[in-house]
Amino acid sequence: MSLLVIGTVAFDAIETPFGKTDKIVGGAATFASLAASYFYDKVKIVAVVGDDFPQSFIKDFNNHTINTEGLQIKKGEKSFFWSGKYHNDMNTRDTLVTELNVLADFDPIIPASYQDCEYLMLGNLTPQVQQTVINRLKKRPKLVVMDTMNFWMDIALDDLLATIKMVDVLTINDAEARQLSGEYSLVKAANKILTMGPKYLIIKKGEHGALLFGEGKIFAAPALPLEEVFDPTGAGDTFAGGFIGYMAKVGSVNFANMKNAIIFGSALASFCVEKFGTEKIVNLTQEEIAARVQEFVSLSKFEII
Amino acid sequence: MSLLVIGTVAFDAIETPFGKTDKIVGGAATFASLAASYFYDKVKIVAVVGDDFPQSFIKDFNNHTINTEGLQIKKGEKSFFWSGKYHNDMNTRDTLVTELNVLADFDPIIPASYQDCEYLMLGNLTPQVQQTVINRLKKRPKLVVMDTMNFWMDIALDDLLATIKMVDVLTINDAEARQLSGEYSLVKAANKILTMGPKYLIIKKGEHGALLFGEGKIFAAPALPLEEVFDPTGAGDTFAGGFIGYMAKVGSVNFANMKNAIIFGSALASFCVEKFGTEKIVNLTQEEIAARVQEFVSLSKFEII
Repeated sequence: MSLLVIGTVAFDAIETPFGKTDKIVGGAATFASLAASYFYDKVKIVAVVGDDFPQSFIKDFNNHTINTEGLQIKKGEKSFFWSGKYHNDMNTRDTLVTELNVLADFDPIIPASYQDCEYLMLGNLTPQVQQTVINRLKKRPKLVVMDTMNFWMDIALDDLLATIKMVDVLTINDAEARQLSGEYSLVKAANKILTMGPKYLIIKKGEHGALLFGEGKIFAAPALPLEEVFDPTGAGDTFAGGFIGYMAKVGSVNFANMKNAIIFGSALASFCVEKFGTEKIVNLTQEEIAARVQEFVSLSKFEII
Repeated sequence: MSLLVIGTVAFDAIETPFGKTDKIVGGAATFASLAASYFYDKVKIVAVVGDDFPQSFIKDFNNHTINTEGLQIKKGEKSFFWSGKYHNDMNTRDTLVTELNVLADFDPIIPASYQDCEYLMLGNLTPQVQQTVINRLKKRPKLVVMDTMNFWMDIALDDLLATIKMVDVLTINDAEARQLSGEYSLVKAANKILTMGPKYLIIKKGEHGALLFGEGKIFAAPALPLEEVFDPTGAGDTFAGGFIGYMAKVGSVNFANMKNAIIFGSALASFCVEKFGTEKIVNLTQEEIAARVQEFVSLSKFEII
């Protein structure tokens, strides 16, 4: 029994209205596996880095009980690097640099010890690679969650649709749901996307929270209103990792558990944006997480008399 | 004891992607008083129309137990008229025609029988007129709710700030909260606006729900995800009317009651957008409203174990 996270492990350089960073560790699998590790102690990652990747961060993974056997380290090569600049509203950003490096010919090799995977998180990556991972698992996991983005809708729609067909939960943002479905109404968009394969759809709405569709039901989760969003990088990956980590912890796949998983994922994401990169989510305590989840409870609770 | 609603009673001509109307009855006080009437049977309006305003609609008000003694009918003059066209996303619109007509020199006369007002809804209007109404009430109402819009921030900011200072609850949308405060973060915006006078602030976020700030607390209400928004005209007024109507019904002003009032207001608003103008909210049953409120409950309820 384990939770397998696939995605990028990489370097980011980030500029926000609050400051800028040098190269810091980022990547979808980084954020997602760290977030998941707060709920589940059998998280394993499949990813690729160059030998420029800091050994100290691999130790951070291991300190979080994250198994890095599937983390390929390519000698003499460089890790994937992304650099971006956020606008004042923190909702839009410009990509300044994208260097694929080791990611260009990433072959996701699944170590034999990972074949006990019951929960699979497909972090944002080429849909073809995401699909390869599903195909290489001898036993279909109990729950497959896939994150993706508009970029793949633009350049690899057929691959994307083929991969979407194979997953249980798809997580995308509202603009992406509209693009993928061709429907403006999110209810119509969700209904259409749920005919494409996934049984559940999570629409991420940033500062407006998230919507879960599935089993003919809808759940609306709030986002925590924050004084400041310091750096949104990785918030979506952190959300997805917290979501599947919580699902792995509770162990049974149903709408009620998914609602809670969304709250726990949102809580983790609300920490993520408080500092640059992984700075905040690499060092959380269970008490901090529990207190943050209680903030979500009091934020959205009402009692109709 | 009564609930006084002031605002426009007017004609609208609306064009949406779904169709267009001739002149139909609209106006902030129309939507707000109808919405409030589902919760409270002592709603009274102060507004002005021309003698082109249909007697049959005044009957509709009265059938809703809305007192129209304060509805001035100006002989030989025409009612306020607004015409607008919504874009495909239904969130933005162009104003095609604005004819002030009787509204140009509206003097809000308060009938003596209205002086028992305990709840005052200041629908969107010139802030100067809203302020006049507060000043003409001999006894300060228990709860004063004020709706306004960016237009007054642009052309009458000083009057607006003077009026805001006198109210208990301000309702504006997220863009307006940012404009009024000069802060992008809604938490910072709210904190700043709460130093301007109101004890509570409701930030309306359309399809993303609403936020209530006050007593050092925050409540996030979801919006009901709808397959189709047919016509958003009057949704904000309907929300505000449902809100204050529910507050008048429960009779005690506190955060917990306001949370429920927001849910009831949101439920009414979700009906409003299903048809053109007042078509839907003029003919609701208590059973329909209760069922819709239950949809909000199941939409946002979760139980953390």
